[in-house]
Amino acid sequence: MTPDRIAAVIDFLALADRLKHVERRGRTVGPDGAARQENSAEHCWNVALVALLLHGEVADPPELGHVLAMIAAHDLVEVEAGDTFAYDEAHVLTQAEREKAAADVVFARLPPDLGARMRALWEEFEEGETAAARFAMACDRAQGFLQGVIGTGHWRAEGVSEPQTYGRMDPARKVAPVFEALIATLYERARAGGMFAEPRP
Amino acid sequence: MTPDRIAAVIDFLALADRLKHVERRGRTVGPDGAARQENSAEHCWNVALVALLLHGEVADPPELGHVLAMIAAHDLVEVEAGDTFAYDEAHVLTQAEREKAAADVVFARLPPDLGARMRALWEEFEEGETAAARFAMACDRAQGFLQGVIGTGHWRAEGVSEPQTYGRMDPARKVAPVFEALIATLYERARAGGMFAEPRP
Repeated sequence: MTPDRIAAVIDFLALADRLKHVERRGRTVGPDGAARQENSAEHCWNVALVALLLHGEVADPPELGHVLAMIAAHDLVEVEAGDTFAYDEAHVLTQAEREKAAADVVFARLPPDLGARMRALWEEFEEGETAAARFAMACDRAQGFLQGVIGTGHWRAEGVSEPQTYGRMDPARKVAPVFEALIATLYERARAGGMFAEPRP
Repeated sequence: MTPDRIAAVIDFLALADRLKHVERRGRTVGPDGAARQENSAEHCWNVALVALLLHGEVADPPELGHVLAMIAAHDLVEVEAGDTFAYDEAHVLTQAEREKAAADVVFARLPPDLGARMRALWEEFEEGETAAARFAMACDRAQGFLQGVIGTGHWRAEGVSEPQTYGRMDPARKVAPVFEALIATLYERARAGGMFAEPRP
């Protein structure tokens, strides 16, 4: 590796460090019982752990290395674009455009071959058309939903009703029976805990 | 997946969530310029990103899925045992014993087959004898060292001199030329920034 290539990788990693400061809506509860927002770096690790635990549970699992690589890369554009709350409808409308502009900035920090590799992982995840991307998407959404349940529900505070979550969670449930079973159990717990807001009339 | 298996996986993931509250010594600097300790969940994602960027730079790279799985699992015992600062000599002496006891607790929360799989990944990382484990170790140590540099050096505040870091960093440097080049560059930056404490006479 040439000195320039080393310097570019260090520079990119310093930029990627910002993902530890991008807050998501889901909460994590510390040993003192206090809840704080989860950040996107923690989320990325947690999604990898979900993928690792569920990978052996699906028929014809996609290649694990490819799935975990996509998961490690899937939120990098947020260091420029920030996180978009899945239930903020106005913000979601501009998300693709904002993230594309962010990708142009973020991946350009890497040497071209590495930047192209990372960008291809991010694009595959976003397009969601391969089996690996669908598996990664289901892990991503299941983790976000789980975080809502173990963080004792940010939905009620945010005014998010159960039906508002279906558009996001139904595609994940359809990826494989294990996601259907896991997400159904999480819905049961969220309902039992009164974690959703009442649907708007 | 049976309901019991689903419940065990959810229970394990709720326990794993604690990794987001295990503080390491390295620091990360937020957009407001304030530094805080990095946590072990963020670290695990960051190590995966380092592995992804460097995997193509080594001759005969180990299988990426296996490396990334090991990285996702390598710090899970810290939810029971906490993080051990690499330069706290007394604490390091008891680390293996404390982490083994923690592993008995943590991995027992999973169904036996999944627990055995996760434990095997952790043990392979700890033993450091396979090519995949050595690659993962080098990524782990390079990331920790990088965090020291981009967090503007916790070593000085902790009284850690440059020679005290050699025992930890030399094995990583030897794994492949790319690690030697990356870590040498990080040492140059740490020295230029005056980030190490003076060696004790």
